[in-house]
Amino acid sequence: MAEPITMTSVSLDDICINTIRTLSMDAVQKANSGHPGTPMALAPLMYVLWTRHLRHNPVDPDWPDRDRFVLSCGHASMLLSSALYLAGYDLSLEDIKQFRQLGSKTPGHPEYGVTPGVETTTGPLGQGVGNAVGMAAAAAHLGALFNRPDHRVVGHRTYFIASDGDLMEGVSHEAASLAGHLKLGDLIGFYDDNRVTIDGETDLCYSDDAMGRFASYGWHVRQVEDGNDLEALDEAVRAAQDDPRPSLIVVRTHIGYGSPNKQDSAAAHGAALGEEEVALTKQNLDWPGTEPFHVPEEALAHWRACRDRGAALQAEWSERFGGYAAAHPRDAERLRSRLAGELPDGWEDALPTFESASGGMATRKASAAVLGALVARVPQLMGGSADLAGSVMTTLPAAGDFTPDDYTGRNVHFGIREHAMGAVMTGMSLHGGVRPFGGTFLIFADYMRPAIRLAAMMGQPTIYLFSHDSIGLGEDGPTHQPIGTLASLRAIPNLTVIRPADANEVVEAWRVALRTDDGPTAIILTRQGLPVLDRSSLGPASALARGGYVLSDPVRGAPQVVLMASGSEVNIVLAAQRLLAEQGIGAQVVSMPSLELFGRQPVEYRNEVLPPELAKRLAVEAGHPMPWYRWVGSEGDVLGIDRFGESAPGADLFTHFGFTAEEIVVRAKALVER
Amino acid sequence: MAEPITMTSVSLDDICINTIRTLSMDAVQKANSGHPGTPMALAPLMYVLWTRHLRHNPVDPDWPDRDRFVLSCGHASMLLSSALYLAGYDLSLEDIKQFRQLGSKTPGHPEYGVTPGVETTTGPLGQGVGNAVGMAAAAAHLGALFNRPDHRVVGHRTYFIASDGDLMEGVSHEAASLAGHLKLGDLIGFYDDNRVTIDGETDLCYSDDAMGRFASYGWHVRQVEDGNDLEALDEAVRAAQDDPRPSLIVVRTHIGYGSPNKQDSAAAHGAALGEEEVALTKQNLDWPGTEPFHVPEEALAHWRACRDRGAALQAEWSERFGGYAAAHPRDAERLRSRLAGELPDGWEDALPTFESASGGMATRKASAAVLGALVARVPQLMGGSADLAGSVMTTLPAAGDFTPDDYTGRNVHFGIREHAMGAVMTGMSLHGGVRPFGGTFLIFADYMRPAIRLAAMMGQPTIYLFSHDSIGLGEDGPTHQPIGTLASLRAIPNLTVIRPADANEVVEAWRVALRTDDGPTAIILTRQGLPVLDRSSLGPASALARGGYVLSDPVRGAPQVVLMASGSEVNIVLAAQRLLAEQGIGAQVVSMPSLELFGRQPVEYRNEVLPPELAKRLAVEAGHPMPWYRWVGSEGDVLGIDRFGESAPGADLFTHFGFTAEEIVVRAKALVER
Repeated sequence: MAEPITMTSVSLDDICINTIRTLSMDAVQKANSGHPGTPMALAPLMYVLWTRHLRHNPVDPDWPDRDRFVLSCGHASMLLSSALYLAGYDLSLEDIKQFRQLGSKTPGHPEYGVTPGVETTTGPLGQGVGNAVGMAAAAAHLGALFNRPDHRVVGHRTYFIASDGDLMEGVSHEAASLAGHLKLGDLIGFYDDNRVTIDGETDLCYSDDAMGRFASYGWHVRQVEDGNDLEALDEAVRAAQDDPRPSLIVVRTHIGYGSPNKQDSAAAHGAALGEEEVALTKQNLDWPGTEPFHVPEEALAHWRACRDRGAALQAEWSERFGGYAAAHPRDAERLRSRLAGELPDGWEDALPTFESASGGMATRKASAAVLGALVARVPQLMGGSADLAGSVMTTLPAAGDFTPDDYTGRNVHFGIREHAMGAVMTGMSLHGGVRPFGGTFLIFADYMRPAIRLAAMMGQPTIYLFSHDSIGLGEDGPTHQPIGTLASLRAIPNLTVIRPADANEVVEAWRVALRTDDGPTAIILTRQGLPVLDRSSLGPASALARGGYVLSDPVRGAPQVVLMASGSEVNIVLAAQRLLAEQGIGAQVVSMPSLELFGRQPVEYRNEVLPPELAKRLAVEAGHPMPWYRWVGSEGDVLGIDRFGESAPGADLFTHFGFTAEEIVVRAKALVER
Repeated sequence: MAEPITMTSVSLDDICINTIRTLSMDAVQKANSGHPGTPMALAPLMYVLWTRHLRHNPVDPDWPDRDRFVLSCGHASMLLSSALYLAGYDLSLEDIKQFRQLGSKTPGHPEYGVTPGVETTTGPLGQGVGNAVGMAAAAAHLGALFNRPDHRVVGHRTYFIASDGDLMEGVSHEAASLAGHLKLGDLIGFYDDNRVTIDGETDLCYSDDAMGRFASYGWHVRQVEDGNDLEALDEAVRAAQDDPRPSLIVVRTHIGYGSPNKQDSAAAHGAALGEEEVALTKQNLDWPGTEPFHVPEEALAHWRACRDRGAALQAEWSERFGGYAAAHPRDAERLRSRLAGELPDGWEDALPTFESASGGMATRKASAAVLGALVARVPQLMGGSADLAGSVMTTLPAAGDFTPDDYTGRNVHFGIREHAMGAVMTGMSLHGGVRPFGGTFLIFADYMRPAIRLAAMMGQPTIYLFSHDSIGLGEDGPTHQPIGTLASLRAIPNLTVIRPADANEVVEAWRVALRTDDGPTAIILTRQGLPVLDRSSLGPASALARGGYVLSDPVRGAPQVVLMASGSEVNIVLAAQRLLAEQGIGAQVVSMPSLELFGRQPVEYRNEVLPPELAKRLAVEAGHPMPWYRWVGSEGDVLGIDRFGESAPGADLFTHFGFTAEEIVVRAKALVER
């Protein structure tokens, strides 16, 4: 239990700070759900940061040069909601009262796109740290590209607040290590050192020296011993702003600050304090009101000065931008266009077409060719891989490396940090002005899954390149061979998964990915070579945009069976079609690169591709069969894999697991004869 | 490029070391696939560790008190395969020659259960570090429980080797932080500081001060500046053994050591060196043979002394264990039984039965009751949660906390470290003697997915408790509401997913989980209360073991439609059955807690539960519909969710997303009338 807090006089600062505390208590109490303690602990920091340092304009949350603020500990959402309301964003006291109710602008955790001023959706811990690193990286890149000696038009910082949970999560390690390596000096984080977790004291499970840890990443670290000391907070922020390294400020706070019976205890963490304790706390804080959601006029007025300050800051920037536009009109237009998320006119003209070739081309190589074709035409394309640039083939030729010495480079070396790569990409995309892509082996999509899911939830058009997409990768064996990964990605709402069958389908996959602006796309690529299909006798690759299409009608006669497949299995199915024809069985071959895109087509189109009367259907994919049952139906069959792979040359494994034309013939005949 | 290496005389030590290097080069060359450079770099460390320090007996790889060795950088698998062969494990030179071929004992990455002496499957980076922490934790626990003042029968250490990739991965942070907190002094790690990754120099993306970082976790850290200096390595290992903290020894090595043209370059990382370079390297190392796979007799003889040393060590231990068994016969028998993976006789008698109650009980609470019932009867049950013990209800009552001051406790506070929790649980299970379980919210299964997958691949019977399993969790909103998580878990081979419908199904789920010894089980639990079903008029909960069963025949007449569901949706479906009966429509209700278990039943049983002639089937689950299409067929329908959730009270969300008896009636009637 903390010592009782006694106050003799309450300053305006204190009233402004306590307004966050009381709104947070009251909103959680009304919803009878939420986390009051952390907003109460962090209220002074939020007040100092938002009213004195954060360059933001509540009236225009989209001002491009605003500072970004990320509340990585999203469970403290009332901290952010309170500040947004008080500072004068488009969020009313009524909205605050609707905390955690259906359709409200104040959901249980901060949600991008739902609440004006929320820069990213947080809650799953650690993600916000990665997002913040991505925002800082995008800002550094655009600043390096567009600022001119007398015109600093990209000059904002990224701030984040992290809890012990954020710092325990592995993704915080990956992201902080990358930020330290990249020397992202405009990134300033606060660690809310409140020493209490949901289960009790942090020392139940956590003994890290957080300052030593971040120093080992090359960060500037500082401590504020009293999280209620506004001048100490102020000084720490100024020092962080002046330091060329990313900064972590460790702030000692008290969870549930002001609550006589729950301060510094887990009881203040994840549940309402209770009517009585709320009343006692208000009394203890010398709070002037007893009604819930009371906002003292002087506090609101003082907070709302953020609007004037923000308007002035933005006006100053607009003037600066005007000067820039006069001196560098083409750069100004390019920057505007990029920040608006526009792609350059005619970018699709640059896309290559591949001649048919049985010799073959790995689809990862085709993707590399697309990157090479687009690099000059789509300057906002920026990305890399988790230390597999050579294997996944993610390098943008002649586009330079994004390094601490040169932020103009577009090739990002994310390191062996898939999870951070995902979260950083999302942050870059949220920042705007860049179109991030990132690659690794498909199996390691598992490592970045939490970040992919949040990108999908936020509708960010990030692009994932996942190569080595099946047992076809061969010798690396079962540890590296994805079996359920495709199914697991297809189960993420608003993520489009595309597994192209040949080089020309890769081109179309990239076209779809870049045209998509409301969600991420995963392009699934082979390690091994695949024939480039002869489109003169087959359906056009451009039909990929519909998810599935008839690639080949039966050689003769009416179809008796549909063979559908994705990726590397499509050419095997085509071979099976020929063998079946020799036995007098007509097979319609469907290339099905994206079940999501196909599922979104009108039923009429779907029935053209998979005629209802043609119920004998065999789906072939070297992965878990689960996603295919919907499309093969009761009279169909799926040739997939539901066990782990083996270490052997890829061709041997295709035979071993039955992905051969001969086996497909057997299965198809069994269907026809059933 | 490294300076040329000149040797005038070659010691026996050098020959023993170079045997690893040449075997590794030759095996990778023959397979034309693999990673030669790291085994070449680490050969001296492996030699010193395995011949001088590691307490192991190649003839009995299952000796319970052996030291554990984990090669976290599994791509260096030839390092381990070479050492296993040379030390005299059941692995021949012929096996080495079959590196990376189908069915061989030398797969591309180390695989547990495939190669004698391999303690864990590695390759996906960082996992081995977590496994090693788990092994050390299990050893600490068993030592604290079973050792007696004059009888130290559990006295082994755990060693691991990690690469830059392992240390970049977030899971290494989580695991190392936990190990530091727990002061696992018998854990000794080596960091292979070779400064080269697949994409080039590590300084492309990595600037961590690894020693500072691990020191911040409370580890003892040391540096060996020359990875070829055997005495320095020796001294560092001794110092680590003597230090009460976990130790990290940073060893500066040279990837591809000895290769005149590829040492210290990424070219030595992930591809064969080439015939010519192999020859040049052998020349440079003064290697006595030119034939591939040449093993000098004196080297083999010296290495094989590991057998004598191991036999003596084990004999000494056996004698010690004999004395222990004489003094403490019941303890000795308990330890033997636990290490053999046996559960105590009659443990199932302790399982509770719940009376029907419409008032309801959250399935997480039923799970807590099972833990309470089993805690005394199944002492090897050990586990906890990722800082959600109170929410997931994972606490073993009166079983103490597993803390640095008391390793006898069985409640593990994993911290907000889901990924490490998964990897640590696997390590505990691999070690043996404990039966680990771990819990978090279902959505955070995403964070630990790579670890779950490897546990499944290794057939480890870990138990995951995932609560807050749907939109039913309510206010925390879409960030916390799993949509595709069930589907994604069901796509992992050899993982059994069980989502019980009520308290008695929870009991049966635990029964299945504990009876299973060849793979992990995930038990999916609700936050919200559910009715305890009245089994007097319904199918028995014990039928859960078959995955799906007829819970209720139509109230009257023949069934026209099947309603199947899992978990919290089962009672809604029962309500719909009653409403349909009022409208004269007979519905058969199937409880389907585990699609995996049901899929493994004979077709006759499956046809009893889902009669083929009863093609009108509606599946209801508050998650992605993908897993259910297989079971509803072409004439069926799935009521699921394929978008993200919302923040609101759980009951509101069930209505909002259509999980109501009324909506089910509409859907079922549509099927019947179609």
